[in-house]
Amino acid sequence: MTTLQIGMLMYPGMTHLDFTGPEQVLSRLPNATIHHVWKSTDVIVADSGLRFVPSTTLADCPDLNVLFVGGGAGQMALMADDEVLGFLRRQARDASWVTAVCTGALVLGAAGLLKGRRATTHWAFVDLLPLFGAIATEGRVVVDGNLVTGGGVTAGLDFAFALVERIGGADAAQAATLGLEYDPQPPFACGHPRRADPALVERVRAELRANVDERPRAP
Amino acid sequence: MTTLQIGMLMYPGMTHLDFTGPEQVLSRLPNATIHHVWKSTDVIVADSGLRFVPSTTLADCPDLNVLFVGGGAGQMALMADDEVLGFLRRQARDASWVTAVCTGALVLGAAGLLKGRRATTHWAFVDLLPLFGAIATEGRVVVDGNLVTGGGVTAGLDFAFALVERIGGADAAQAATLGLEYDPQPPFACGHPRRADPALVERVRAELRANVDERPRAP
Repeated sequence: MTTLQIGMLMYPGMTHLDFTGPEQVLSRLPNATIHHVWKSTDVIVADSGLRFVPSTTLADCPDLNVLFVGGGAGQMALMADDEVLGFLRRQARDASWVTAVCTGALVLGAAGLLKGRRATTHWAFVDLLPLFGAIATEGRVVVDGNLVTGGGVTAGLDFAFALVERIGGADAAQAATLGLEYDPQPPFACGHPRRADPALVERVRAELRANVDERPRAP
Repeated sequence: MTTLQIGMLMYPGMTHLDFTGPEQVLSRLPNATIHHVWKSTDVIVADSGLRFVPSTTLADCPDLNVLFVGGGAGQMALMADDEVLGFLRRQARDASWVTAVCTGALVLGAAGLLKGRRATTHWAFVDLLPLFGAIATEGRVVVDGNLVTGGGVTAGLDFAFALVERIGGADAAQAATLGLEYDPQPPFACGHPRRADPALVERVRAELRANVDERPRAP
């Protein structure tokens, strides 16, 4: 049985839970190797200050079966970074699954990988998807062929269990769900604009969009 | 306004989502500094292979307002580690909040910090809590005075939003909930033994307990 190669892009300023949530869940797949990929293997500082060490580089990363990009303020720089966009295009060509969580979808978009595809992203950025030719689609996890995208940050968990099911089967996904005790009981039922106070929605949207100081380039 | 000092223990073999989930949520607290604490600032390898760099050491960590311990197979070694247990006892003395997620509670127990207190842990290990004098209590998040404990792995999210509410107020917790899009839609409704197939429960329990090769020492 060959080993599944999973590559997850990490970068300075990532919202690390976009990455760490799916990474923990996907690590429960049998026969999978997860690569934590960046330009170098120097330490990366995530948005919260938490520090990570990549396991390999864009240049050294093997051919991937699963390609993943998470979001965070740092993705703005990636969207104009030809080295990163070239890596994504090259890996996406033969990958079985091309995936993103949160604003990681915008990076796939900047690489030209969302054209004509149904996709989602963090609720505060969903209006940007059509700039890349994507069909913005309702849903915490959206599957269009081999493209799987999740909503904002914590949607990465729902995304990852859904991906484990598609790759490893329902049994593997259920074992991971129980092992990671994924039986959420949110203390507050305001995790999506449709369920939140409009004033809160406007305030959080303004905070999140403050660092989007220029419209991302269409590819 | 003084800065809240939050200290989160990290260690080799931790189940990193126990740590990274709460870390991401707590990082949304205003006026808080989060320390990622271990014996040295050398690279740590988590259970999945993901690599982290601590920000400070047990010796250099300032006095904490919030003390946190997550779980994972690596916690077995901590439970017999006088340097770690001493750090926890010393910090817990004046901390406003003493907290754990998953089997991190067993480490607090080994440090003698659960005696006569209501607490929870991962469902597969809840029978061990009384060994430390704790009162095993139903609930994804259990609060007993200044002790806040969460269930297994992903319970760390519910735990962290509840803790943000207590520290920063409901408004801060709601903004974090919406910003992190915490509106979970689990693909599988089997995240707790009460909702899962008994055969699956037995299989996952056996896998998780396999590395508990000796009963933890009572303190």
